[in-house]
Amino acid sequence: MLTEQAPFAQPRMWLEPTKAVSDDELEAIHHASLRVLAETGIDFLNAEARALLAANGAEVDGDRVRFSAELIEQFVSLAPSSFSIHALNPAHDLHIGDQSVAFCSVASAPNVAGFGAPRRAGNREDYQNLLRLCQTFTSIHLVPGYPVEPIDVHASVRHLHATFDAYTLTDKVNHVYSLGKQRNLDVLEMTRIARGITEDELAEQPSLTTIINASSPLRYDDVMLQGIIEMSSRNQVVVITPFTLAGAMAPITLAGALTLQNAEALAGVAFTQMVRAGAPVVYGGFTSNVDMRSGAPAFGTPEYLRTAMVGGQLARRYGLPYRSSNVNAANAVDAQSAYESVFALWGAIMGGTNFLMHGAGWMEGGLHASYEKMVIDADLLHMVARSLQPIIVDDATLAVEAIAEVGPAGHFFGTQHTQDRYKEAFYEPLVSDWRNFETWDEAGQPTAFEKANSLAHLAIDSFTPPALDPSRREELEAFVARRVAEGGVETDF
Amino acid sequence: MLTEQAPFAQPRMWLEPTKAVSDDELEAIHHASLRVLAETGIDFLNAEARALLAANGAEVDGDRVRFSAELIEQFVSLAPSSFSIHALNPAHDLHIGDQSVAFCSVASAPNVAGFGAPRRAGNREDYQNLLRLCQTFTSIHLVPGYPVEPIDVHASVRHLHATFDAYTLTDKVNHVYSLGKQRNLDVLEMTRIARGITEDELAEQPSLTTIINASSPLRYDDVMLQGIIEMSSRNQVVVITPFTLAGAMAPITLAGALTLQNAEALAGVAFTQMVRAGAPVVYGGFTSNVDMRSGAPAFGTPEYLRTAMVGGQLARRYGLPYRSSNVNAANAVDAQSAYESVFALWGAIMGGTNFLMHGAGWMEGGLHASYEKMVIDADLLHMVARSLQPIIVDDATLAVEAIAEVGPAGHFFGTQHTQDRYKEAFYEPLVSDWRNFETWDEAGQPTAFEKANSLAHLAIDSFTPPALDPSRREELEAFVARRVAEGGVETDF
Repeated sequence: MLTEQAPFAQPRMWLEPTKAVSDDELEAIHHASLRVLAETGIDFLNAEARALLAANGAEVDGDRVRFSAELIEQFVSLAPSSFSIHALNPAHDLHIGDQSVAFCSVASAPNVAGFGAPRRAGNREDYQNLLRLCQTFTSIHLVPGYPVEPIDVHASVRHLHATFDAYTLTDKVNHVYSLGKQRNLDVLEMTRIARGITEDELAEQPSLTTIINASSPLRYDDVMLQGIIEMSSRNQVVVITPFTLAGAMAPITLAGALTLQNAEALAGVAFTQMVRAGAPVVYGGFTSNVDMRSGAPAFGTPEYLRTAMVGGQLARRYGLPYRSSNVNAANAVDAQSAYESVFALWGAIMGGTNFLMHGAGWMEGGLHASYEKMVIDADLLHMVARSLQPIIVDDATLAVEAIAEVGPAGHFFGTQHTQDRYKEAFYEPLVSDWRNFETWDEAGQPTAFEKANSLAHLAIDSFTPPALDPSRREELEAFVARRVAEGGVETDF
Repeated sequence: MLTEQAPFAQPRMWLEPTKAVSDDELEAIHHASLRVLAETGIDFLNAEARALLAANGAEVDGDRVRFSAELIEQFVSLAPSSFSIHALNPAHDLHIGDQSVAFCSVASAPNVAGFGAPRRAGNREDYQNLLRLCQTFTSIHLVPGYPVEPIDVHASVRHLHATFDAYTLTDKVNHVYSLGKQRNLDVLEMTRIARGITEDELAEQPSLTTIINASSPLRYDDVMLQGIIEMSSRNQVVVITPFTLAGAMAPITLAGALTLQNAEALAGVAFTQMVRAGAPVVYGGFTSNVDMRSGAPAFGTPEYLRTAMVGGQLARRYGLPYRSSNVNAANAVDAQSAYESVFALWGAIMGGTNFLMHGAGWMEGGLHASYEKMVIDADLLHMVARSLQPIIVDDATLAVEAIAEVGPAGHFFGTQHTQDRYKEAFYEPLVSDWRNFETWDEAGQPTAFEKANSLAHLAIDSFTPPALDPSRREELEAFVARRVAEGGVETDF
């Protein structure tokens, strides 16, 4: 079953992305964002960042930083429209931008559910198991954060053990949480060791990602700015993502939430280019809405679908790769989790996303990761990839002769035209159960959840870690041991 | 809950439909279809139809009919690009074509599941209950066939009793099965009575739909052609739909399956216009694929998504309204049923469908209708409709002032900008459960299925039939009584 997956390959978005606002409306959002940046400004809660902003011409007043339109456009234009990220396994290197799409696993869930146990706090065993799934499913291209937080590992050393697990259980691109400069430095060094390269080579080869969230509205926190400084200065990948929930941290109107998203994103992107011109950066959109009755965040909604499309329009306007997400707010891996997810995928993919965060395993508005949802999503991502394969139209595929040969009331099963193609013609799902009712009934009426559960067990039971040069592994072990002995990092962030 | 639904309103497809093949590729499919029609031809299993085809210039040889490209283009061009359908309740009249979208219920399932009982053969009680749901949910715009077949009503009189139920439990546009001329005539008469109009008025006001399936490959059966003759001659709505499953009744290549679909559809559309120039007709696409291991039909697949988009490109090329469908192959109302459905919706909606068959309640490749899936789908259709509302971009919605007022680290909940808009800002779902985990857990961890089940009960328990003029109701009763006494129709179709 799992060995029959399509090989690891990034899809290419060959369809024209959908415009959910007109070009004029897009310009109106752009100009409104520039007004916000020039008139209200953004708080940057880091003195080093403010000094760099001031030196580059931003207007700094206490924590507040204001940008002229020209300053934003000057620095945003320095960011590359695409770049490569290098994985431990070169077969898992990624191209980010242009028409390429990269699918990420879920990241940062504090809880975990499934694999035979109820929802529980994140822990290292589940973290490791989810990494095994991330490595197994070829439709998961990178792991941009802990699929679930290993809370049972002390925060002072969590990044050390978790990164060790990531680089010994997967050979895909990984991530560092920007929660203080030393964490960035530790994981940068572990990435260098795991890839077996020098510091100079690392700075030439983006190999590590970090997600930088604006604390919407209009604030970049200290640790996030430290993260940009450490990562961008070393030419590593920064994904700027404002968290603009319309009605809560952002205006209730979609145009207003997008204005705020865009203002925050532009300020963040511009800052990365002040740190290092040409540093790889991704424009992130995460605008959704809250349930106005309860204040609960909602995902995969009609509002999400449209703002995901506009996010792509904005990113393309600036020539930046675009991050969107596969999200839902369901507590159970039921129909809701699936339809909200595919609505989110609809918006993200038709919005032209290049970097699909939380592609597999995200549940409950991000509050838990699910084994079974990760398997179902891995299948959905394969379906999306297959959907993004062009239809081949030529004399052979138009099949006029085959149609003539079969004629009225005939059947195509036995024709040579079919025989020549049947093995590769259609996507074969991992999870979907297409058996007829009687056979399915006799099998005990398994649902997609149960099928996904058995596939998760199969993947984890049969897991073989990817090859890692023993000397690199020893060096990683020694680095972790030393840094743990030193007490890790401060945890008063 | 149910009273808070958005009012009955057809969405408008304001987004640019997605092109899944280039314009040149589309022309290649078009020309290949014309070659099939000119060289291989199609069997028309009805002498009256063949005579009419011959009289209009088609080449008739036994059952086989061949069309020149000019003949096809001449007659297809006579079909209207849009038209209205009149419902019993004028508030439920529909516009078919242009950028309008109409959402249909499921139709023609032989089995039914849910509402507290396992999968069972279709019957009148479930049929009536599903009609009640069709009437209740404002996102279901018409009922183009029996949501489930009332198999316990004898086939000779089923159409009489079922149509009586449809016109007393709903006031939305309905349907007649083209299974022999007399059925068409009976239901046309019942439609005339229910609408309280004359035969001449009925012929001026399309009020009834029928689905005409080609028996792919390349055959129109006798009863289907009788249906076109009776319906098109009276200016009623014919939805031509080839059933082209790639790998079975159609070539295994998507381009080939689309070529066959298009050939069959064009022949059917042209024939409607020979019966009556200007008669309302819809171009239907139903190309999917089979599981090549088992031969089972698959729906909501990556193949379906793309062919649904191309179907729209073809229909628009001919200036015809486009029918697509909301389909899945799941046995259970689980994640699979939902993700396959939304993949199908993605293809259909981005393909620019005007007439979405099986919009609510279809399961198991059409082999059963589900109460709970109908409720979930009704919610999905509302979500699609909301997704098709343009984002309003103006000074007020861009919210630059509101953003300035709130400033960094603030919150938008309490602002006047939010207060002025919170009631209507976002879609409020019927089914999705956005409660936090603890609350949801205390409530017994209900899934979407359970929520949908309780909504189905609520809708049916609180159902009030729509108003129907008592004299029309009596006339319908008398008509049914008379026709039942006469023995109904022959059942040797």
